[in-house]
Amino acid sequence: MHNPWQVHTDKFVNEKESIMRNGNVYQIANGYMGYRGTLDEFGPDELVGITLAGLYDQVGDAWREPVNAPNGGFTQVALDGTEISALSTRIKKHRQSLNLENAVFERETYFESRKKTLKIKSTRFLSADKPNLGVIKYSLTVDQPARVRILTGIDYNICDLNGPHLFKLTPEKKDGILLVHAVTGENSRKVAVAEAVDLRFGNTAHEIKDGKNLRVIELDAETKKTYTFYKYFTVYTDNDPVKTSVKEAVLKSAQVARDSGYDECLSQHNAQWAKKWDYCDVKIDGDDEAQLALRYSIFQLLIVAPVKGSANSIPARALSGQVYKGAIFWDTEMFMFPFFLYTYPEKAVELMRYRIKTLDGARRKAKTEGSGYRGAYYAWESQETGDEACTYFNIGDPFTKRDLRTYFRDKQVHISGDVAIAMWEYFKVTGDDSLLLDGGAEVILECARFYYSYAYFKKDKNQYEILDVVGPDEYHERVNNNAFTSMVAKATFEIANGTVNYLKQKYPGALKTLIRKINIANELPLFVEAANLLYVPQPDKKTGVIEQFDAYFKLKDTTVEALKARMMHPNEYLGAGQGLAVPTRVIKQADVVMMLNLFKDRFSKEIKKANWEYYERRTEHGSSLSACAYAMVAADIGKLDWAYNYFLRTAKIDIEAKYKVYVGTVFMGGSHPAANGGAWMTAVFGFGGVKADEKSVFIDPRLYEKWNSLQFSLIHQGDRFSVKITKEAVDITSGPSNKSKHTFIVSGKPVHCAPGCVSVIKYQ
Amino acid sequence: MHNPWQVHTDKFVNEKESIMRNGNVYQIANGYMGYRGTLDEFGPDELVGITLAGLYDQVGDAWREPVNAPNGGFTQVALDGTEISALSTRIKKHRQSLNLENAVFERETYFESRKKTLKIKSTRFLSADKPNLGVIKYSLTVDQPARVRILTGIDYNICDLNGPHLFKLTPEKKDGILLVHAVTGENSRKVAVAEAVDLRFGNTAHEIKDGKNLRVIELDAETKKTYTFYKYFTVYTDNDPVKTSVKEAVLKSAQVARDSGYDECLSQHNAQWAKKWDYCDVKIDGDDEAQLALRYSIFQLLIVAPVKGSANSIPARALSGQVYKGAIFWDTEMFMFPFFLYTYPEKAVELMRYRIKTLDGARRKAKTEGSGYRGAYYAWESQETGDEACTYFNIGDPFTKRDLRTYFRDKQVHISGDVAIAMWEYFKVTGDDSLLLDGGAEVILECARFYYSYAYFKKDKNQYEILDVVGPDEYHERVNNNAFTSMVAKATFEIANGTVNYLKQKYPGALKTLIRKINIANELPLFVEAANLLYVPQPDKKTGVIEQFDAYFKLKDTTVEALKARMMHPNEYLGAGQGLAVPTRVIKQADVVMMLNLFKDRFSKEIKKANWEYYERRTEHGSSLSACAYAMVAADIGKLDWAYNYFLRTAKIDIEAKYKVYVGTVFMGGSHPAANGGAWMTAVFGFGGVKADEKSVFIDPRLYEKWNSLQFSLIHQGDRFSVKITKEAVDITSGPSNKSKHTFIVSGKPVHCAPGCVSVIKYQ
Repeated sequence: MHNPWQVHTDKFVNEKESIMRNGNVYQIANGYMGYRGTLDEFGPDELVGITLAGLYDQVGDAWREPVNAPNGGFTQVALDGTEISALSTRIKKHRQSLNLENAVFERETYFESRKKTLKIKSTRFLSADKPNLGVIKYSLTVDQPARVRILTGIDYNICDLNGPHLFKLTPEKKDGILLVHAVTGENSRKVAVAEAVDLRFGNTAHEIKDGKNLRVIELDAETKKTYTFYKYFTVYTDNDPVKTSVKEAVLKSAQVARDSGYDECLSQHNAQWAKKWDYCDVKIDGDDEAQLALRYSIFQLLIVAPVKGSANSIPARALSGQVYKGAIFWDTEMFMFPFFLYTYPEKAVELMRYRIKTLDGARRKAKTEGSGYRGAYYAWESQETGDEACTYFNIGDPFTKRDLRTYFRDKQVHISGDVAIAMWEYFKVTGDDSLLLDGGAEVILECARFYYSYAYFKKDKNQYEILDVVGPDEYHERVNNNAFTSMVAKATFEIANGTVNYLKQKYPGALKTLIRKINIANELPLFVEAANLLYVPQPDKKTGVIEQFDAYFKLKDTTVEALKARMMHPNEYLGAGQGLAVPTRVIKQADVVMMLNLFKDRFSKEIKKANWEYYERRTEHGSSLSACAYAMVAADIGKLDWAYNYFLRTAKIDIEAKYKVYVGTVFMGGSHPAANGGAWMTAVFGFGGVKADEKSVFIDPRLYEKWNSLQFSLIHQGDRFSVKITKEAVDITSGPSNKSKHTFIVSGKPVHCAPGCVSVIKYQ
Repeated sequence: MHNPWQVHTDKFVNEKESIMRNGNVYQIANGYMGYRGTLDEFGPDELVGITLAGLYDQVGDAWREPVNAPNGGFTQVALDGTEISALSTRIKKHRQSLNLENAVFERETYFESRKKTLKIKSTRFLSADKPNLGVIKYSLTVDQPARVRILTGIDYNICDLNGPHLFKLTPEKKDGILLVHAVTGENSRKVAVAEAVDLRFGNTAHEIKDGKNLRVIELDAETKKTYTFYKYFTVYTDNDPVKTSVKEAVLKSAQVARDSGYDECLSQHNAQWAKKWDYCDVKIDGDDEAQLALRYSIFQLLIVAPVKGSANSIPARALSGQVYKGAIFWDTEMFMFPFFLYTYPEKAVELMRYRIKTLDGARRKAKTEGSGYRGAYYAWESQETGDEACTYFNIGDPFTKRDLRTYFRDKQVHISGDVAIAMWEYFKVTGDDSLLLDGGAEVILECARFYYSYAYFKKDKNQYEILDVVGPDEYHERVNNNAFTSMVAKATFEIANGTVNYLKQKYPGALKTLIRKINIANELPLFVEAANLLYVPQPDKKTGVIEQFDAYFKLKDTTVEALKARMMHPNEYLGAGQGLAVPTRVIKQADVVMMLNLFKDRFSKEIKKANWEYYERRTEHGSSLSACAYAMVAADIGKLDWAYNYFLRTAKIDIEAKYKVYVGTVFMGGSHPAANGGAWMTAVFGFGGVKADEKSVFIDPRLYEKWNSLQFSLIHQGDRFSVKITKEAVDITSGPSNKSKHTFIVSGKPVHCAPGCVSVIKYQ
């Protein structure tokens, strides 16, 4: 039977691919940094990575990517002079596990070396309470007396895809604390790592060797005696608001952590995790497989949620490494943000602050793409400044080894609207208008301004059109009137108008200041016109199917299978202008269906059904973003078996780690937080049928028949609720400290839930 | 020393490639049909082809292409039972020649077989007087008594690229005349070939064998006696306005020709050719190489000029075979038409009638491309109906052998404007407005309507833009605001407005009828607005360089050489979305420079110079249309050495036949009438500095220093002139039968030339 709070394996497979995938599955993180699920004795060849959120560096013309810190968690043991490692020593028994309850990684390995058995057990976590801190408890036991040498400290041999990023790497030892400090190559940003230990046995020496700053502990280990020590490593960079220097900061924080001790650190950490799960857990009764996969998905989001005040966002491969340049895509707003918005808005707000912080980068991008646009054109791949990290040549051709021109960067314009929509949703669902005043309104107006400058008017049809774009389906580039993109642009104009109206009523002074600041007075009437006259492809009158873009229906109709049968290379990319999918109706991922989900109130169930059925069979799901859109719309139209299958597909992606790791010639292994967010959305929005606006929470339960109940928490307008959906009823518990009565509309019936009360609403 | 009226070779190289290229160089044609320059005994393997103008056929999904007729010119000799052929017999001496004066092809070959020598001489022409007729005089002589067998008749083994096109091929003999008739596969169009001989020796039998309908003549040939016979073959198809049947027509016409005899046929033929050269010859004194190359170029145009009343046009590879689908491109209007317009308007008018005839095809194309346009979108590759013959996948990728998506067909929208401009030029230069009334005005208005439906309005810039096009430089597809294309569109609106104004004044009733017929009243004011507000990229204020399209200047700047050094396959195409030139400023052919030439009055010499110098070094000249544009603008800006080099390049293309014959995986060998037209234009428009409008002829002589004089004829407003440019003066002779005094403006000085008078104007 599944432990619904744990993933584990009893196998260690000494192969690169397995080590790489397990590094993803067993990663821990705390929003500040990620630590791949590698073993204590591993090094850069095994992709050990402590990836830092929000710190990037570039080497030459290679991709900019996040910086990995020196590994303060390194420990290597030798038994009677023989180095012990999972890579070289016979393993009698091994188990590694990840506790989802509190993001603690544990490994226990029995090694056999010259007929002696060494048991190593280590437990590690990145503090959810103190984001700069990692803690490790390391124990060893021998079954016969043995000479043991322990090397523990900081390994500054750093794994990089496009490195090296750290220069002037300097190992030091100060007041018993090991230290490595360095600067990044591109911008000379300081990075420092300190490590303090609490170690009370053996003789300790200090050694700097082979890129490691080490303590060397020699002891004569006694039979069956367990030797335990504790490591406290801290990481600081110039991104941290430190009082003195990053060097002082790491030293001091490592010392403080050691002084407070392991139990205290763990207890603070656990308290944070208890809160997280209280806010965010979803319980599925009657389906252990779905339960674990969903919880693991939620866990993946929780570990990478940005640190308070950081104004960081979540990259498309989270903190699992440097893949995809550590860049933030639309994935965050469209697939991860709703989870935080509905459960943990103090994380959602950081994601939005990130877009406010990077508004100038988006303005720069608008000016430089094409012949220059106005407003904010957010980066398709965004890093710390918001400048574009996506290259024009983003995928390698396996036939010629040349890089293929793709139009992700310059034509995937829906990104700006995705940001504006999230910004507006934040305001609507939380009721918190401070973000609007604090840059959010400026973001929204600049996004609308961008679309206006991008749009063309077709005089003979009296309509604006959004031309020459790439929609979510990236196999079809440079298309006109992509339904999803145009709808997003239209919504952006509406949101801009809504923002202006809201501020006009409530904060007229602030509006005036903003209008003056960005000199947008003359354009505001144009946004009203554009919201009305922007063309969005409509359902065909006979079939109900919405054409994904102009002339899509003229493309060759074929099947995904037939298309794949024509592939000449397993990694050939199906898009990029000449790919096999380009002249066909086969699409990479949900596109029209994505629109039907994002704008679910604007389309009837019949239209959703017609389009789901039309596009589902033509979708390759070449993106991890696809399955959840099909799952949610399937739930919406009552195709619950389909919804369930697509739900499992999105929920299991990272726990099973069976994803493909190459597209074209590009390595893209790593975790999939957008799919994780999609799993949560499918559970709560899909099967739970939840949506909220500024006034009410709607619940239209569509419980999967296998499930006895579905239970989750919600926060709406600052008040917290717990919801339990059974086959007959919805129980809504309004938190005792809630401020006011809220309206829930359950299957069309309004219910008013007062603080501290439980409402039980029978449905059907 | 060159014979300025002849090309010849004394070599026969028994290799496919040489036979193919000579088939082009020595081809003859008469507008109705082309006959490749192959030898009498050759068959389909040697690409014997009698290609018919304006008759096309399609097999399955293969390209539609022109139909080749059965070869009524076939003759094969055997000597003492041994077949004699240039392919298998030892050749002692060989000469083949083409007389440019009258398009007569001659071959004389001395064969040696078993120590006997056989001399074969044959002379052939396709009648310039009777377009359905071909005539051959065939002689043989032996140096020792020998048994000779002659097989002569109709070979209906037909060479095809995408055939077979002729079905129910039926050989017959009737009243001594051989006959093969057949029908095309696609549309069951009848094709018949007859052959009559005048043969007065030996014993003749009839044989149908191996796809040949033959006379078998046996004779005991005497030493040094020359045996001569005459062949008269005629071709008719359903395209001919025949009274009875094509079968009757070929029989009768073959008989009539035989009855009138060789000398009479030749004399009628020569009379036509005398007229042609009287109209069209250009004499360069002091430069034999240039003289021959230019005359050969003019010759190439004269042989393929359409038959009167046919409303046929000239394909991009003329009648040299089936390459390029026998299709008509913009080549005709932009590169060949001016030659006919200024020298031989009764041919020019056929080219225009062809566009009127195919207007409905252009309307159909407009409706079906993209999401549908209005008006006339002429086919990029046009055949007899004007429906599009160009495929969306037009070039093969040598790496994957897959067909590449190109946008020639759907995005090269300048074609419609090219047609409209030619139509208007015809009216302006000839003064003949009957063509406007006879469909020309309708073509012009429908082309303007197409551009209006294609254009978008940019409200915030108050301008129309032509987006998403392919300009002349086909390496950069799907660009916005291509200067050439936008200028052509703007001119089309101006021409539409000019047409309306002209008709309003002169033929108000006809205008009214036309407006009602095509229901265009509401759109006419829009054309006026569009002519004013259509954006065309302007010269950069500092450098004077016009950006070829939006963001062209952002492309990587590199050299043609550096680009070519990166090629991995000799035939890889540099465009098509992922080609090597796409991300660079290297262009396939004149584009901005083409615009500066076509609209030479709208730009100063400084702007022309800045752009010529900028783009010349970035042009690969991957199209035979490129050199003449650079030549003409070079002449315009006084770079006469450059003009001369580019002139020779365009003028020698077919006489030297050194062009490449593969692009991607597509065979494209054949003649280059656009380059031939470019040679004439460079001589007359470039070095002669000629241009004309409805009022005057301008002559700004820029005689190349090597040349003593340049002499040519012109027709303006129906009156003929002969012009001789020397280093000091321009002599203008107005034809004695001219109707009126004409104004010539020579280097800015107006001169009035009265009928029958010679005006000598000193210039400089």
